[in-house]
Amino acid sequence: MSTKRATGITVKKNENFSEWYSQAILKSGLVDYAPVKGFIVLRPYGYALWESIKCKLDATFKETGHQNAFLPTLIPESLLAREEHHFSGFTPEVFWVTKAGDNQLSERLALRPTSETLAYSLFSKWIASYRDLPLKINFWNTAVRAEIKATKPFIRNSEFLWQEGHTVHSNEKEAEEEVMLILEIYQKMIEDYLAIPTIRGLKSNKEKFVGAEYTTTLEGLMTDGKALQMATSHHLGQNFSKPFEIKFLGKDSHEHFAWQTSWGVSWRLIGAIVMVHGDDKGIIMPPKVAPIQVIIIPIFRDGEGIQVKSKAFDIANELKQLEIRVQVDDRDEYTSGWKFNEWEVQGVPLRINIGPKDIREDRTEFVRRDTGEKVFIKRSKVSESAILFLEEIQKNLISHAKKYLEENVTRANNYDDLKSILENRGGFVLAGWCGDEKCEITIKEETGADIRVIPFEPQEKSVSATCVYCGQQAKMVPIFAKAY
Amino acid sequence: MSTKRATGITVKKNENFSEWYSQAILKSGLVDYAPVKGFIVLRPYGYALWESIKCKLDATFKETGHQNAFLPTLIPESLLAREEHHFSGFTPEVFWVTKAGDNQLSERLALRPTSETLAYSLFSKWIASYRDLPLKINFWNTAVRAEIKATKPFIRNSEFLWQEGHTVHSNEKEAEEEVMLILEIYQKMIEDYLAIPTIRGLKSNKEKFVGAEYTTTLEGLMTDGKALQMATSHHLGQNFSKPFEIKFLGKDSHEHFAWQTSWGVSWRLIGAIVMVHGDDKGIIMPPKVAPIQVIIIPIFRDGEGIQVKSKAFDIANELKQLEIRVQVDDRDEYTSGWKFNEWEVQGVPLRINIGPKDIREDRTEFVRRDTGEKVFIKRSKVSESAILFLEEIQKNLISHAKKYLEENVTRANNYDDLKSILENRGGFVLAGWCGDEKCEITIKEETGADIRVIPFEPQEKSVSATCVYCGQQAKMVPIFAKAY
Repeated sequence: MSTKRATGITVKKNENFSEWYSQAILKSGLVDYAPVKGFIVLRPYGYALWESIKCKLDATFKETGHQNAFLPTLIPESLLAREEHHFSGFTPEVFWVTKAGDNQLSERLALRPTSETLAYSLFSKWIASYRDLPLKINFWNTAVRAEIKATKPFIRNSEFLWQEGHTVHSNEKEAEEEVMLILEIYQKMIEDYLAIPTIRGLKSNKEKFVGAEYTTTLEGLMTDGKALQMATSHHLGQNFSKPFEIKFLGKDSHEHFAWQTSWGVSWRLIGAIVMVHGDDKGIIMPPKVAPIQVIIIPIFRDGEGIQVKSKAFDIANELKQLEIRVQVDDRDEYTSGWKFNEWEVQGVPLRINIGPKDIREDRTEFVRRDTGEKVFIKRSKVSESAILFLEEIQKNLISHAKKYLEENVTRANNYDDLKSILENRGGFVLAGWCGDEKCEITIKEETGADIRVIPFEPQEKSVSATCVYCGQQAKMVPIFAKAY
Repeated sequence: MSTKRATGITVKKNENFSEWYSQAILKSGLVDYAPVKGFIVLRPYGYALWESIKCKLDATFKETGHQNAFLPTLIPESLLAREEHHFSGFTPEVFWVTKAGDNQLSERLALRPTSETLAYSLFSKWIASYRDLPLKINFWNTAVRAEIKATKPFIRNSEFLWQEGHTVHSNEKEAEEEVMLILEIYQKMIEDYLAIPTIRGLKSNKEKFVGAEYTTTLEGLMTDGKALQMATSHHLGQNFSKPFEIKFLGKDSHEHFAWQTSWGVSWRLIGAIVMVHGDDKGIIMPPKVAPIQVIIIPIFRDGEGIQVKSKAFDIANELKQLEIRVQVDDRDEYTSGWKFNEWEVQGVPLRINIGPKDIREDRTEFVRRDTGEKVFIKRSKVSESAILFLEEIQKNLISHAKKYLEENVTRANNYDDLKSILENRGGFVLAGWCGDEKCEITIKEETGADIRVIPFEPQEKSVSATCVYCGQQAKMVPIFAKAY
């Protein structure tokens, strides 16, 4: 943690959200910019957060019968082109390798924008019979897509850390169940660990993954009123198994094309944590995924250091026993005030101050990052209190985020309504839709908002039964929003 | 595990080592070939082995104060070129990205052959004062180097999984200590976990890492008599800190260039496990890193299945309590003989057979993969015996490998000796060397052997005090060998 320059954030979150975000992620030491435009570097603090998220998800994938594997970064152009829609969706973003050393390659190689084509060319070799199914494989890697739009760290980058899962099944029902199982795993992790509520449902045909039958999604709402797609889980049907010839001999002794799914989450989740929970002082880490859950600051003048530091390390050792991720900031070169500020920018959920007076009075001072609340805690109660405080902070973050989401789902009964809401307050707007892509496109062009999600669960607020744009009978009630 | 077709290996290890190796890694389900020549895919079983190794190393790196981070895949040509020797060493192997979508890039981007240049351009921004040092960062990623020579899975590929550590220090002594600390961590892990003995020492100037002051190495000996470089740890001196301007303000209030190290191990270690421990039946996993340590086979005829399988799962649950990685192969579609063969090819160290007769006699049958030994074990002793057997197998593997290594370090007192040993039996050959690169190069040209390592520890066998090639006074006694 020694290499950050924590100076406070100089803008307010609700005054200049975009600048606040940039400062929060840079000054907390999560990221830095890479030399190539659109690419970022994850510094140790940022990577530790990614490891926390990864560790939790990975365990859940394994518990549900998925296995990890590794695929190379490079995909031959001919392979990428085998599924037509998929290829045309990705080619504008592909980085092409054309030379190795001084030699021109005979076929261009794409930097993996996603691994469907590469994985499925292998799956077709690995699968022969129903005995080989289901095949459920996950890859922790990066995807590389040349971003032409404005980039934003974690949210839109030319390379991003993610996981991509790919499964193959002998029947459609099992594949569809897998799509939903994964969506539930994502939603539970994002809500329980990242403390971010999401709305789940379908993407419209226009917004679905290129090559999928349908795409399910979790949509989150950032505190500037813009939507963020947090996770997607796709039913691929037989759209890839046919061009890639993923066939199996069934129990009926006939050959069948397999049914497939793919799904992924990326380091976008880190961006969401920052946007949803952060405040004017910096980021606030949800305790369950915080790389450092408790920071202990020994406060002392010359001559008192040894005793105070020793007490601080005693407490740290006690907390470590409980598997709390704790650090002591015992650096002599910085003042306590400077340290408070640094750890606040970094969003460590709980700070414990201890000085000579506290030692005399057999106590410590707990400071909550989320509320700023300060409480003296008896030395003997430090462990149990730390656990309680961390739980309390986690609960407070999710309850705040849920309240914000609920308050910012509104309904629009007519097109003027929709435009006015999107212009003035943003957020998620429920509105009737006839199902025609023309209305969807026009709304997007005129308001900048698209269909984020067609919710699975009926939303409480009642909405007019006609299409918000054309006035025809509405077939469904999607959520419209401007989005990242 | 459902997607392999385990047919036995059709050649003997000591008759056709190369073909045996290819069959062993393919038929065990460790790897498959990727569509681009020279690239491979790690299948779930292979990736699980990599995760075992990674997990152990990662914990040790963290215990010794290293942090993980993430760097992008692409490096601008100008940055790669900033350290001249380094650049000229890598350019013949670089894959170049020249286009994004349809757009020609203004500067070519290299696929990361190694991250020194990219990391150090960032370190120079992150480091300002002695307070920011030491900086100790590790990256788990892949390196991409176009292999022009014949490729071999795990041993020589155009992309490989590895970790690369990069540290920055305020003085040379600390950097040199780091180089040795890491070499020791590697050696201990490779010996204690992979059961492979290595000889540690220096690379010659000709063989060192391009850009390093010196390179330390661990050399292993494969059972075909060829050497394999298992791990390297480099002292970079100030060779990179000067061109990359990694400077810090010292306690003396003066500016200094920093001292640096870099180090790495790759999935080569998997290739070494296969080569060193495997036998005619397939691979043999060292228990400490085996993805599956114990496989339980319920053996039954029609009608007996339920009872036998239930016993098998009882045992598995008991072993899981002890954190043994265990699986039950309860598939109905395969015969027991077929299963035995499959798990032998995959090298699961311990197999437990259980059938109706065993249940009646309150016992199980233990079968060791390394020796083939079969023993009946009372049901009540299964847990403690499994632990003992796994320890015993681990010990047996390292003791065998050590014996092989000792028997295959020989000495050459003159050039004819050296040529004859290299031609007939291979292995490691100790021979005097004057230190002149001309002798080193001629020996390589004439025998195919190079200097693998100049050992730190004096080797027991006494060697002539003259250079094996030119007859001048020897300055050191390196190990010569043909190598992968």
